[in-house]
Amino acid sequence: MQSFTSLVAQFEQRFGSQLPFPQMPTNLYDPCRYLLGIGGKRVRPVVCLMAAELFGDITDDAWHAAAAVELFHNFTLIHDDIMDKAPLRRGQATVHERYGLTAGILSGDVMCIYAYRELASAGKSLKQLLEVFNTTAIEVCEGQQLDMDFETRTDVTIEEYIHMITLKTSVLLGCSLKMGAITGGALGDNANKLYEFGKNLGIAFQLQDDYLDAFGDPAKLGKQNGGDILANKKTYLLLKAYEAADVTKRAELDRLTTESGAEKVSRTLALFSATGADEACRAAVQQYSDKAFNCLEEVAIPSSRKGPLHVLASYLLVRDK
Amino acid sequence: MQSFTSLVAQFEQRFGSQLPFPQMPTNLYDPCRYLLGIGGKRVRPVVCLMAAELFGDITDDAWHAAAAVELFHNFTLIHDDIMDKAPLRRGQATVHERYGLTAGILSGDVMCIYAYRELASAGKSLKQLLEVFNTTAIEVCEGQQLDMDFETRTDVTIEEYIHMITLKTSVLLGCSLKMGAITGGALGDNANKLYEFGKNLGIAFQLQDDYLDAFGDPAKLGKQNGGDILANKKTYLLLKAYEAADVTKRAELDRLTTESGAEKVSRTLALFSATGADEACRAAVQQYSDKAFNCLEEVAIPSSRKGPLHVLASYLLVRDK
Repeated sequence: MQSFTSLVAQFEQRFGSQLPFPQMPTNLYDPCRYLLGIGGKRVRPVVCLMAAELFGDITDDAWHAAAAVELFHNFTLIHDDIMDKAPLRRGQATVHERYGLTAGILSGDVMCIYAYRELASAGKSLKQLLEVFNTTAIEVCEGQQLDMDFETRTDVTIEEYIHMITLKTSVLLGCSLKMGAITGGALGDNANKLYEFGKNLGIAFQLQDDYLDAFGDPAKLGKQNGGDILANKKTYLLLKAYEAADVTKRAELDRLTTESGAEKVSRTLALFSATGADEACRAAVQQYSDKAFNCLEEVAIPSSRKGPLHVLASYLLVRDK
Repeated sequence: MQSFTSLVAQFEQRFGSQLPFPQMPTNLYDPCRYLLGIGGKRVRPVVCLMAAELFGDITDDAWHAAAAVELFHNFTLIHDDIMDKAPLRRGQATVHERYGLTAGILSGDVMCIYAYRELASAGKSLKQLLEVFNTTAIEVCEGQQLDMDFETRTDVTIEEYIHMITLKTSVLLGCSLKMGAITGGALGDNANKLYEFGKNLGIAFQLQDDYLDAFGDPAKLGKQNGGDILANKKTYLLLKAYEAADVTKRAELDRLTTESGAEKVSRTLALFSATGADEACRAAVQQYSDKAFNCLEEVAIPSSRKGPLHVLASYLLVRDK
């Protein structure tokens, strides 16, 4: 079984050095190369490869599925950044910021199509891969739409929020694992168990992200905390605080949304603690994390083979807490 | 063999009444339903069905391919309209105009994925269909990029222009025919001949469109002519006029780009005629049209079966000349 580091290196070598894009038209493909070149942890393709290796060798189909999922993920980043008006991604200018709106839309489109072209190179697993990939791709779009919808809604429930992050970010992790398992010839319910592992891991990771944005160590995170608070983002913490708050605290939460600056952050954080939203968020991370590990346990493969997925999941869930 | 009208009606009934989109999230799928509901001639899906019928019955695979190509085409319309800042499409508000930029980007994205999902429902032809569809989808994006690039370039050649319209609009017509032929089990070079028929027909149609925008009968076209001229669009006519013009006429063409109104249109039209660009454009339409019909002749199927494709091609190429 190969480690995350080893598989990242192999993926980078195969994928990074042989990006599927031609040189021309440069205005179409330079933005694609740019985004793929400024990093990213390659978590999705690597868990795809890890899932494949659970069941045997990493086949060509697994490599195609891994490349497809990384291309698809980067396509969504380009378009999401436009919709979110985000200036930075991975510490660098976003595609639309650097190349303009037209290039952002079109290079995203073509990257999505290249994702499908990678997938279409698969052999015997093709039909199954397409089914899970299509379902997931649609869900990711739906999740992004819900996220956009939530910006202007004031009645978002915790349940709706979990549903949104599940679609927007978690199902693609589940899909990556399931596709890997399919290429490995997984039998019975194993591919679905891995999907559930990835989905719950993704939810736990996103909730932890919400928590760290508010309460993480700025030195370790490399950024000031409170970004979500300043943007009035409806995170798990805010929704939970609102739900648990009494009339007075709710009024203060409402009033804080109209403010700005460090004062806004510190007073909102105080309310997150006073309402128990901080503890609730940590508990939810734990709950989805437990669910994820239980699903991994249920995969009918000797535990010894699951080491790399365990290590990776633990790594994703303990960073700088 | 079924007529265009009959196949359009059948396509509308199967596709229009069973659009693949769910109700929710409404902000994602309403724009999709809106665009597909405001019309469109359904030329691409219908030629796909016609090509299938050349070789036998219209199979489920043919219907899936037809739906895929119509969804893909509409996806490109949504995104192209954003890039072109177009307010109107089919006489109605464009998607981004009606629903906003975010909805335009995201509903386009999801429509592209639904196109792939339709295609993925194909049975034995799946692998072949994906190959031609992916190649074409990439070319369509490249064509749109070239079109965008041309806006700011001053050295576009006729050859480059033909290349651009081939990618942007003609290959999808070729692809529609080829996919239909594949689902019909076309043997030998027949599918490729049909592709070439569609591609050349598409080029002829686009060049005729350039011509009609300048010289068509406004009453028959339902719009004033000269739209391309007013937008300084680098059409075949303008590029040809520029190429054929002497120093004086070229200077006048340059100067006219800075003007506006009816005077600009009439004087540019006069230059198109004086340089022979109008005749050259009609000759080019004829040339690509001849090429198209020759390719259709070469398809090894009794001529009697080719009737509907003949009728459709003739209809597309004689409208209101």
